[in-house]
Amino acid sequence: MAEYIGQGVFTFSNPVRIESYAAVAGKKESEGPLGYCFDEIIQDSHFGRQTWEQAESQFQLEAVSLAVRKSNLTKEDIDIICSGDLINQCIGSAYGLRELEIPFMGIYGACSTMAEGLITSSVFIDSGTAKRAIAVTSSHFSTAERQFRMPLSYGGQRTPTSQWTCTASGAVILSSDTGKSAVTGGCIGKIADMGISDMTNMGSAMAPAAAETLRRYLEATNTNPENYDYIITGDLGTVGSTLFLELMQNMGKDVKNHKDCGVLIFDNYAQDTHCGGSGCGCSAGVLCGYFLPMLENGKAENILFIATGALMSPVSLQQGESIPSVAHLVNIRRIAQ
Amino acid sequence: MAEYIGQGVFTFSNPVRIESYAAVAGKKESEGPLGYCFDEIIQDSHFGRQTWEQAESQFQLEAVSLAVRKSNLTKEDIDIICSGDLINQCIGSAYGLRELEIPFMGIYGACSTMAEGLITSSVFIDSGTAKRAIAVTSSHFSTAERQFRMPLSYGGQRTPTSQWTCTASGAVILSSDTGKSAVTGGCIGKIADMGISDMTNMGSAMAPAAAETLRRYLEATNTNPENYDYIITGDLGTVGSTLFLELMQNMGKDVKNHKDCGVLIFDNYAQDTHCGGSGCGCSAGVLCGYFLPMLENGKAENILFIATGALMSPVSLQQGESIPSVAHLVNIRRIAQ
Repeated sequence: MAEYIGQGVFTFSNPVRIESYAAVAGKKESEGPLGYCFDEIIQDSHFGRQTWEQAESQFQLEAVSLAVRKSNLTKEDIDIICSGDLINQCIGSAYGLRELEIPFMGIYGACSTMAEGLITSSVFIDSGTAKRAIAVTSSHFSTAERQFRMPLSYGGQRTPTSQWTCTASGAVILSSDTGKSAVTGGCIGKIADMGISDMTNMGSAMAPAAAETLRRYLEATNTNPENYDYIITGDLGTVGSTLFLELMQNMGKDVKNHKDCGVLIFDNYAQDTHCGGSGCGCSAGVLCGYFLPMLENGKAENILFIATGALMSPVSLQQGESIPSVAHLVNIRRIAQ
Repeated sequence: MAEYIGQGVFTFSNPVRIESYAAVAGKKESEGPLGYCFDEIIQDSHFGRQTWEQAESQFQLEAVSLAVRKSNLTKEDIDIICSGDLINQCIGSAYGLRELEIPFMGIYGACSTMAEGLITSSVFIDSGTAKRAIAVTSSHFSTAERQFRMPLSYGGQRTPTSQWTCTASGAVILSSDTGKSAVTGGCIGKIADMGISDMTNMGSAMAPAAAETLRRYLEATNTNPENYDYIITGDLGTVGSTLFLELMQNMGKDVKNHKDCGVLIFDNYAQDTHCGGSGCGCSAGVLCGYFLPMLENGKAENILFIATGALMSPVSLQQGESIPSVAHLVNIRRIAQ
């Protein structure tokens, strides 16, 4: 059972274990500072398929298959799978996971999807509805660019505040009883909208959501940033990260242990990625490739993973709307064996 | 706690109550056989807003606001809201619910969204993560047509197997302790794909998913169709319903008490709706306007609500893919007072 705190904040009496995880990334991601940490690198952006959408599906299927194999499970051991992505109608997930025949919960939180999937999966396990659940998501540079911005062949100029959608996928298997780290609590985000309508400045649109969610969790659990080894945001990038830290400072919270998956994944100067990486696959890949191994190896004990999502579409922006954002938080700790 | 059955099937030891609900529908829906049963009819397809997308958001906000008012609650009493819709990136939900500032879980199950939202909400309450949760979804004829098929102004011919996307929304407030009916169990759907690729024959694409989910729930709970007052599918329409009943008969199950929300909502001959209604708002509106009041008034005791969703996008079909479908099942019973 969860301890009821209300307004989307919760802590589990019995932490929900992380039994396995896997990260799969593309060529450009393999050339960045974290290139060494992914389980598998796919050099071909089509992953042997005919379209980029099919390639993204393949990334997701590969991450799930790897996570299942790494823990010597079979797909029949999994009770539910929570998945979503950025492509219209989440086809990356639906087509990618179709052949698995695992009960499927489609979720949509834009780039916050990995945290939302971890929350949903762990609550299903906490309630006894499932013994094992998978949270997975993906993104692909080429599917995202043509859908949210321009077809790549237009050769559009990228603005200074733009980020580079990662081609990557991360999958986590949560379990009621096995695993060296565990989800101990979380905070479900509220939609925040500060009126930003620039589709090439997503970090700034999402930073207030991250700050609000972190504030709520710290207050509800009576903790401070220094109680955690790392406070990890999903893909705020360099501009969004600066704004996030400012917003936290305005609340009297000095977040010295902040890391952003979008900042970590690329060398922005050498790789010409402007403000950093983005996309659901960015935070999912960095969580599964970099931070979860740190917990497993004892290099970190207690982290907050706050994935942020921008909930707009090109249609809503064309209609003059601003960008609503959401940030979901997951508290993950190393479990003494 | 839920009783663990596995593979996405569950029953709750303490059923999760349905405290309130509301249905809001458009003009055409008000002229159909169920026109009398909706809480509110909106004659203007723009709902006073500038675009159809904004109108759909307004429908969703109105359904939630009505459900909250009907039970004398305020939005601060709600811990989480689970919502999704058919528009790209689920903007109907994100923009509609933005002003509420309730912790927001975005879900995507196409037309199965209402059942998925009821499952997610009730599992969150069962685990103690929330005391009150809202499941809501919507659809709008004009947003769906231009996105999935043709812009309305093209004046395209509708095929005989096509269905009419309902302009409607339904919202349900689930609670840990108050309400005359309750979610007693459910079954999370697996993705089914029988190779159908005709975007105007969604009923046939979705029928196998409904049959497979119903079969799993009946087997896991050791029940038969006649143990329920109604077995309700979401929006299979007339063609899909016939196929669903045939598939069930092939499994040796004669479903005599079947109702389909898409068949019920329109008079297909008088209203020229071909195979019936469809869209997330169809099953959500009919559940909240027609079936939940029957449970409250004692006209039914035990129903299965199986909402079906087609998980394709126009892009996936243009790329030669078939239509994967999913069906989620919710068992709802009247509670003795």
